[in-house]
Amino acid sequence: MTITSAKNPRIKWVRSLLASSRARRDEGVFVVEGLRLLEEALASGWRARLLLYTPELRERGQALLEGFAAQGAPVEAVPEHVLRAASDTEAPQGMLAVLDWQPLPLPEKLDFVFIPDAVRDPGNLGTMLRTASAAGVQAALLPPGTVDWLSPKVLRAGMGAHFHLPIQALSWDEIAQRLHGLSIYLAAAGQGQAHTQTDWRAPLALVVGGEAAGAGPEAQRLATSRVHIPMPGKAESLNAAIAAAILLFEVARQRGI
Amino acid sequence: MTITSAKNPRIKWVRSLLASSRARRDEGVFVVEGLRLLEEALASGWRARLLLYTPELRERGQALLEGFAAQGAPVEAVPEHVLRAASDTEAPQGMLAVLDWQPLPLPEKLDFVFIPDAVRDPGNLGTMLRTASAAGVQAALLPPGTVDWLSPKVLRAGMGAHFHLPIQALSWDEIAQRLHGLSIYLAAAGQGQAHTQTDWRAPLALVVGGEAAGAGPEAQRLATSRVHIPMPGKAESLNAAIAAAILLFEVARQRGI
Repeated sequence: MTITSAKNPRIKWVRSLLASSRARRDEGVFVVEGLRLLEEALASGWRARLLLYTPELRERGQALLEGFAAQGAPVEAVPEHVLRAASDTEAPQGMLAVLDWQPLPLPEKLDFVFIPDAVRDPGNLGTMLRTASAAGVQAALLPPGTVDWLSPKVLRAGMGAHFHLPIQALSWDEIAQRLHGLSIYLAAAGQGQAHTQTDWRAPLALVVGGEAAGAGPEAQRLATSRVHIPMPGKAESLNAAIAAAILLFEVARQRGI
Repeated sequence: MTITSAKNPRIKWVRSLLASSRARRDEGVFVVEGLRLLEEALASGWRARLLLYTPELRERGQALLEGFAAQGAPVEAVPEHVLRAASDTEAPQGMLAVLDWQPLPLPEKLDFVFIPDAVRDPGNLGTMLRTASAAGVQAALLPPGTVDWLSPKVLRAGMGAHFHLPIQALSWDEIAQRLHGLSIYLAAAGQGQAHTQTDWRAPLALVVGGEAAGAGPEAQRLATSRVHIPMPGKAESLNAAIAAAILLFEVARQRGI
């Protein structure tokens, strides 16, 4: 064990990466904790720049360790209190890695794109990405007002979506370019057509706004149509991730995918 | 102001109610914080046993205060630090009430019932209740393994569903009695029919299990059919509240409600 103290510079580095989206962006890395997420990352070919683990690994942990070591990644056994100091969670599951961020390429021909706009709650964004991945979305494009998708809470709620689904944080101009030729639907309470009366089979992007203030002015401008979810009951609104799920799975249903 | 200290017995009482589902059950009360939820409660005819507020009320708060005072509820101005001490949140919105729990009656003829089984995460349960209320569910029946629906976090995520939707915590025997004659669908990954291939128009109850372990053995026994949500993408699973939303709104879509 070469790292025995929580004050070791590499532990401080991991903490700075967990705390700051700017630090992650500047270095092109992000931090992933827990066996399940790391298994998905390894299986999907993501590469580690550093892997920390506590020595009491069981079989799953051992397999992961060997997998990342086979990439040539530096792996370091650390005492439990050091891993906890480096971790974003109270009870880290024995392993944590700094991964190189490698943008997954967008498909050449886009026909099902998801745009979570002005989503500030990391848990909500992570759940949205997980749901989008399940619904067969080809890409998630994240406008400037949405929380950093590589933050630890988004990763946890994303449950591995990050490793499969092409996700790109872009300016609105870049988003507009990518969406050229697609219908752009904006979810807006009480506006436009009911989602159940909308034909979702042509190539499209769906914009869903955040919980607090909904979608921003750029999204409003870019949208070619508005849709709403009819609510037969007494509730005034839906959670943003719930609204996204209902819409994305209605698209999937109509397309028979 | 008669309450000036966080050690006042009434403040301690509120804290004990926030902390303990047993204390709430024993006294038949629950604690609601924030203007928005209290407006819904008042508009829906719920009665306060105690209302605490900070004196710097604006118009909305003043209207609420008068509404609850008109019920004959004891209302007490307290300094901000006392309200904060009595509150479950870091920044209480100037008002908190202890409400009498009055069970909303179940409709005579049930044809759309939601059963969240073994849901341990309060935010998830609250979101499920909010979504169920929006989808036009007539009643939510909560089996023993599900978290207390009157806990502060469930109330916050429920966004007012508690005041409109009949919700009852029951034993499995009682649930079985209430569901007599209904089809009972259990959401189970990869099992039974696809939800899009299921005819949801006959009277039914839908059981959705919690995130960690899914539905328990009693739910498995009670279910008359199983359904799953086809996932065209690479995700292995959906968040439990997301799965519930997709299913409940597919029922609403097919029924044209």
